[in-house]
Amino acid sequence: MNLVIDQQRLSRDLEALGAISSEPAPVVTRVVLTEADLRARAFVKQLCVEAGLAVREDAVGNTFARWSGSAPDLPPVATGSHIDAIPNAGRYDGTVGVLGGLEAIRALSRAGFRPHLPIELILFTSEEPTRFGIGCLGSRMLAGLFDESAGSRLRDREGTTLDAARAFAGFTGSLSSVRLAPGSYSAFVELHIEQGPLLETRQIPLGVVTAIAAPASLRLWIEGEGGHAGAILMPSRRDAFLAAAEIALAAESAARATGAIDTVATTGVCDVFPGAVNSIPSRVRLEFDVRDIDLARRDSVLDRISEAIHDVSARRRVAVRREMLNADPPAQCAPEVVAALTQSCEALGLRYDLMISRAYHDSLFMSRVAPTAMLFIPCRGGISHRPDEYASPESIAQGALVLAEALARLAG
Amino acid sequence: MNLVIDQQRLSRDLEALGAISSEPAPVVTRVVLTEADLRARAFVKQLCVEAGLAVREDAVGNTFARWSGSAPDLPPVATGSHIDAIPNAGRYDGTVGVLGGLEAIRALSRAGFRPHLPIELILFTSEEPTRFGIGCLGSRMLAGLFDESAGSRLRDREGTTLDAARAFAGFTGSLSSVRLAPGSYSAFVELHIEQGPLLETRQIPLGVVTAIAAPASLRLWIEGEGGHAGAILMPSRRDAFLAAAEIALAAESAARATGAIDTVATTGVCDVFPGAVNSIPSRVRLEFDVRDIDLARRDSVLDRISEAIHDVSARRRVAVRREMLNADPPAQCAPEVVAALTQSCEALGLRYDLMISRAYHDSLFMSRVAPTAMLFIPCRGGISHRPDEYASPESIAQGALVLAEALARLAG
Repeated sequence: MNLVIDQQRLSRDLEALGAISSEPAPVVTRVVLTEADLRARAFVKQLCVEAGLAVREDAVGNTFARWSGSAPDLPPVATGSHIDAIPNAGRYDGTVGVLGGLEAIRALSRAGFRPHLPIELILFTSEEPTRFGIGCLGSRMLAGLFDESAGSRLRDREGTTLDAARAFAGFTGSLSSVRLAPGSYSAFVELHIEQGPLLETRQIPLGVVTAIAAPASLRLWIEGEGGHAGAILMPSRRDAFLAAAEIALAAESAARATGAIDTVATTGVCDVFPGAVNSIPSRVRLEFDVRDIDLARRDSVLDRISEAIHDVSARRRVAVRREMLNADPPAQCAPEVVAALTQSCEALGLRYDLMISRAYHDSLFMSRVAPTAMLFIPCRGGISHRPDEYASPESIAQGALVLAEALARLAG
Repeated sequence: MNLVIDQQRLSRDLEALGAISSEPAPVVTRVVLTEADLRARAFVKQLCVEAGLAVREDAVGNTFARWSGSAPDLPPVATGSHIDAIPNAGRYDGTVGVLGGLEAIRALSRAGFRPHLPIELILFTSEEPTRFGIGCLGSRMLAGLFDESAGSRLRDREGTTLDAARAFAGFTGSLSSVRLAPGSYSAFVELHIEQGPLLETRQIPLGVVTAIAAPASLRLWIEGEGGHAGAILMPSRRDAFLAAAEIALAAESAARATGAIDTVATTGVCDVFPGAVNSIPSRVRLEFDVRDIDLARRDSVLDRISEAIHDVSARRRVAVRREMLNADPPAQCAPEVVAALTQSCEALGLRYDLMISRAYHDSLFMSRVAPTAMLFIPCRGGISHRPDEYASPESIAQGALVLAEALARLAG
């Protein structure tokens, strides 16, 4: 089989998808189920149809593009990722797995490969937590972690429900229909940029992921007392923002105190109300993200943050309401899918590292319902979630090539 | 002279003005030169016309409603305040001075008083700094503290210039025409709610203000480095929000460290960019307000904040750009206007305290161009800049009564 990746075409596809954004280039902002996301979905679906794939969408907008094999009723081998992007993001996070997966399928077809098992490309809805506060929404639903009620329960900052957002996008039907039956897929492989510096630093072109770190996201509503900045004396204050500042710093300290390089804690959201220079903040919404590859160590950080919340709320006389947005266990990848990837690298004469994913991915949830592994390619400076995120066309093409080889091995 | 305040009518006027808001009652949000502000201005101007006053507006929208005296060419005695309101404010801040001032004029007219000097009611533009980041914009301009260039230089968060905002409102002409010629007014008196707890606590109905505290407002732009919350390790981070948190806490410590009850520091604005739970904050806009009745003590707090900025920016490797939005010296009130107020209280048999204003007001700037003093009435719990701000109809009527008596003494 003469597998050839069309590197120029893949770069053109990525460039065209990167240009679909709610903000001007080079910024990519493509929040799920907004107009920009819908335009991007239409673009990808059109490419899938042109590649001869049969496209189907579920009730939350997860999109499946299928290449039927000679045994169309057997569980498919799947690949894929996401195309939604946080505000002020770049062009490669998620999209490399979607368009690289599509090019892998096209390359297999051009090479005359005919799969035994069907091969599917999956585009997952809302890998990013930007809009509804919870990441990997589509893959969580495929794994059966949400029921029907999520449609009215999950809301964005404007109060729009998931049900209203998916209706806007034309995705209807019961959310409980999204859940996959056991054994629906024989394997899942996700191609992704590393979003970290290790491959680049070691000058290794490919990373085969054996485990995915465990993320926890916590939202706090801090309620103090507002008032005129000139008139309320310092000892009488119950300033919600100063409470938030202390809690955020405590989260940082807790992550550093584990002594483990893999522990990270981030306060990415701090909305201050009312937000006027001469008014004492009465209310703050704070959102944390805490990750580790070790579940017990991550939970110890969460415990220390809880202690800080307790201390700060008592001392500053503010009320703190908390919502654990998600707190998922880490995933171990499936040895047979890891083996398909390492064997593919070896067959193609490409060096690889076995590694851990500190960022989390739809693979974390697909691993609950299918044998799953991931393939990483380097990205410049380990930078992601920024407009200057970059992966070279050569790296992306190498990733797509190994992915194609692995799909052939898994579906062959 | 039989001075009688129509308490019911004044309450009705305040209620009607309070209902003009860009958010539903009981919230008052009336940001300057927005549609809500323009509707409120139209309402007040209509009341002035009905009271027989001649209305004039200057290039920045300061509005003057004149009752001609028997010596129409002599400098008028003026009273007034503002009707713009910060987001999520209440009904009484500023409006009591405008509608109470109007009722004082109506009461004088009903009592058959005919002034020698003209009496003017002034409605100042943008006492609140919400939109253009600087408080007392209209009165600063009357005092000659801004030139023409402010029209293109001052911008709101959306980038709209003051010139564009005033054009939207129909206020045209050169901003340099706003400046008052020396001696334009023979006196200025502002009626206002205390915005602090002292009168209520002491059960004193009136406060005659002898000095106004000195406010300073500082805006910081903190620039760190963003990135993926899962992938960037803690030691490599340059988190702009954690830097902001430390600086805000340092500002609080600096204010408390003076040991003086009159020192206050507030961080009312913290805008975090990009503001996603899984993204390290790359940029923060932080705004402080520091006040004291002692200029040297206030400046010592600003110095300590500067030291904290220096320390935090070096330690966290973030760049901090600062803009001093305003840093005004405190004002001493004019003894002859203070005397007119104390004599009026005594003539009416009403108790008063001499006091200091910790909040700042248009009077701070009017005091630079006219003999100025202020009259305070109690507000419940000292609360202001909140929807539950409250002053009783009886208190407001007493304030308007003393104001009317004082205007008669000053213009008689």
